[in-house]
Amino acid sequence: MKPNLLSEFEDTIVALATPHGIGAIGVIRLSGKKAIDIANLVFKGKDLTKQNSHTIHFGKIVDQDTVIDEVLVSIFIEPKSFTKENVIEISSHGSPYIMQRIVKLLLSKGTRLAKAGEFTKRAFLNGQFDLTQAEAVADLINSSSEATHMAAMNQMRGGFSKKIKALRRELVNFASLIELELDFAEEDVEFANRTQLIGLIHTLQIEIANLIESFSIGNVIKNGVPTVIAGKPNSGKSTLLNTLLEEEKAIVSDIPGTTRDFIEDEIHIEGISFRFTDTAGIRVAKDELEAIGIERTISKMKAASIILFLVDLVIESEKEINEEIHKLEELGIPFLLVGNKTDKLAQSKLKQLETSFPEMIFISASAEINIEKLKTALIRLVHFDNFKTGDTIVTNIRHIESLTNTQTALEDVMKGIDTNVTGDFLAMDIRQALHHLGEITGEITTEDLLGNIFSKFCIGK
Amino acid sequence: MKPNLLSEFEDTIVALATPHGIGAIGVIRLSGKKAIDIANLVFKGKDLTKQNSHTIHFGKIVDQDTVIDEVLVSIFIEPKSFTKENVIEISSHGSPYIMQRIVKLLLSKGTRLAKAGEFTKRAFLNGQFDLTQAEAVADLINSSSEATHMAAMNQMRGGFSKKIKALRRELVNFASLIELELDFAEEDVEFANRTQLIGLIHTLQIEIANLIESFSIGNVIKNGVPTVIAGKPNSGKSTLLNTLLEEEKAIVSDIPGTTRDFIEDEIHIEGISFRFTDTAGIRVAKDELEAIGIERTISKMKAASIILFLVDLVIESEKEINEEIHKLEELGIPFLLVGNKTDKLAQSKLKQLETSFPEMIFISASAEINIEKLKTALIRLVHFDNFKTGDTIVTNIRHIESLTNTQTALEDVMKGIDTNVTGDFLAMDIRQALHHLGEITGEITTEDLLGNIFSKFCIGK
Repeated sequence: MKPNLLSEFEDTIVALATPHGIGAIGVIRLSGKKAIDIANLVFKGKDLTKQNSHTIHFGKIVDQDTVIDEVLVSIFIEPKSFTKENVIEISSHGSPYIMQRIVKLLLSKGTRLAKAGEFTKRAFLNGQFDLTQAEAVADLINSSSEATHMAAMNQMRGGFSKKIKALRRELVNFASLIELELDFAEEDVEFANRTQLIGLIHTLQIEIANLIESFSIGNVIKNGVPTVIAGKPNSGKSTLLNTLLEEEKAIVSDIPGTTRDFIEDEIHIEGISFRFTDTAGIRVAKDELEAIGIERTISKMKAASIILFLVDLVIESEKEINEEIHKLEELGIPFLLVGNKTDKLAQSKLKQLETSFPEMIFISASAEINIEKLKTALIRLVHFDNFKTGDTIVTNIRHIESLTNTQTALEDVMKGIDTNVTGDFLAMDIRQALHHLGEITGEITTEDLLGNIFSKFCIGK
Repeated sequence: MKPNLLSEFEDTIVALATPHGIGAIGVIRLSGKKAIDIANLVFKGKDLTKQNSHTIHFGKIVDQDTVIDEVLVSIFIEPKSFTKENVIEISSHGSPYIMQRIVKLLLSKGTRLAKAGEFTKRAFLNGQFDLTQAEAVADLINSSSEATHMAAMNQMRGGFSKKIKALRRELVNFASLIELELDFAEEDVEFANRTQLIGLIHTLQIEIANLIESFSIGNVIKNGVPTVIAGKPNSGKSTLLNTLLEEEKAIVSDIPGTTRDFIEDEIHIEGISFRFTDTAGIRVAKDELEAIGIERTISKMKAASIILFLVDLVIESEKEINEEIHKLEELGIPFLLVGNKTDKLAQSKLKQLETSFPEMIFISASAEINIEKLKTALIRLVHFDNFKTGDTIVTNIRHIESLTNTQTALEDVMKGIDTNVTGDFLAMDIRQALHHLGEITGEITTEDLLGNIFSKFCIGK
């Protein structure tokens, strides 16, 4: 079902490749058969068509008699480029006005403006990499923490595709044996050993289940963890948030222009973003008005992935704490019980509380005691402590859909074997599973699918 | 007075060169003796120290075992680079997180973060170009219209320096003749012909006066024209502004990401920005409150460079218009008299008004009649119609200061000749003039002066 994209490949596309705004330099990128010829029309200094690949040339971009800028031009001759086409990169002074003039000039010379993700799409269609790797390019550009970066880098370097392709290869072997049976249908032979097939399907099901399972971490990596911070008024919620935020600011060095934007309620722990929402606390409502506030609190909590519940150890009784734990358990959302203000407690009282509440993390937000321990507990709560560098983690909802569809097809194969259906039915279900696995890596594509994926890229990539 | 900057040159500096934010690619730049060696420490793929200048290499940036990104590295070997030092440009995926990681890694390997404008400062100190050209780099990056772009490009390409250097050369010749006289002071000879000197000084004074004069245009180019749009309520001020703005939006094509931000009250005409302020109008105050409004109007008008005064031709009598013209003349600010709503007038009435007010531009803002004529008149009012491509225009207040100081010194020379002072006094004044001319191109510099200039650059340039 590979669409006929030949007409697109005749075009030479152009776009700004660097972020918008004023900078020291900006880069304009061209890709296509005529990229070098077209650049040569507006470049004064050298004949670009006579240069080697991977070389850089100083000169002027001219529009008739007007010098638009002095630039460096980099040449990449097909297939040794990102898109496997001829590619030109023009490095100009970083004025949006100048870059716009250059792009307009190139448009007038026979290029057209690239669509979102079109450079990467061409790279994919020209066989530079598979679809998961193309998707990883976008993830990489949007990566904003160690965890997102590592997951995207692993995917771009082919870790995930390798796994999917290996699964697919095993299934293809079996599919061909079954197809062979169909050719000899009258003779009633079985080339494909049913017991072996069952074993293989089992293995595949387990591996795919693991990949689907990894999305619980992948999703956390990519989208962060909505976290409700709850507890009585004055239990120290803001103090705790400030302590976490200040610590993060201190860690992230202040390289001008490359520092992270700190969002008031977002805290990164081991590369995972926890987005905190504050609440009014859940205690027994004293009047109607307060009851409404509590309703809101509970609905906020239900929207959270996890709850960090802060107990004021100085004023709350064990009975009260137990009531709160009970309410939290009723909500059915993973929660972390945190006892605050340990620095204000007698040692004996603390010891006693530690015995009564073995699950509780004891901290002092203001004195910054046990903050590391709290972080470790948060990471453990989102199962991120299971994550190891190099692990294959699925972070993409599209991949999960295809994997889930593959599982369904494999279940159908198993049912078919159980009920002793004929080879042609088995073959159909296996082909269905192969189709869904192929969608992930892009061995099977449709224009819709590609449009969907690449339209989410930025222009220039 | 060239400062000792050698210690700085031992350093290798690093900075992000592309605008901040997410893009397809980002470029990190290193400059210094060890730029290539240091890049080589974190690059996996090839030995960068063994490559030719102006070549590009694909590989990985690695921090021990962690792959941070797959990148392209461009190599420029001294002196064939922007700074005339070894320069490395790393083109990475455009994620701020990744770029920050790479910059941090390079900092840990013996580079330091570049200060604002430090790359350009090194280029200047290493003789790549003179000071006006260095300043033009910043102007070029900030250029946002055809006029700013042309002026900066002309300055960067050396048009202005050439002129200053030619003036200086002529004066240097004379200075050396006078210095020669001093060596033979006892013998009372005159090597330097006084009449010739007077002729030369006159020529210089005229040329410098022209340059100073050009700042009235240069300033308009660089900073735009504060324009008050005034007239009675309902004379059509907003309609006119909208007409001008809509027309501009239609002209500026919508290349995604490179389009101009339209500011409600800023309109570009032939590359000049007119910043409009609306006013309440100046009519005879009927009560106290209105009088205050009129006070404000007049003070706004006094802050303007020009006034565009809109007359409602349908309701205003010739007497009223003449009163308004009288008031405008009293303000002493250049103004343009614009009669609006010609489409609502009988042909005969229009003819009669055209005779009565030969200076008035007759338009219809709503019917879009004579808008071009109005624009031409605005451009003429700011003397921008005298501006020709390639003209040397001074846009920099620092240059104006030095030129003014040069004029003062030249006047002193003239006075000296008039009053027959001895050669050593003449020599002193001529040297003073030479000093101020030298400051412009950077033949004379101080660390203060350089610090002042380059601190206004962005980091990475």
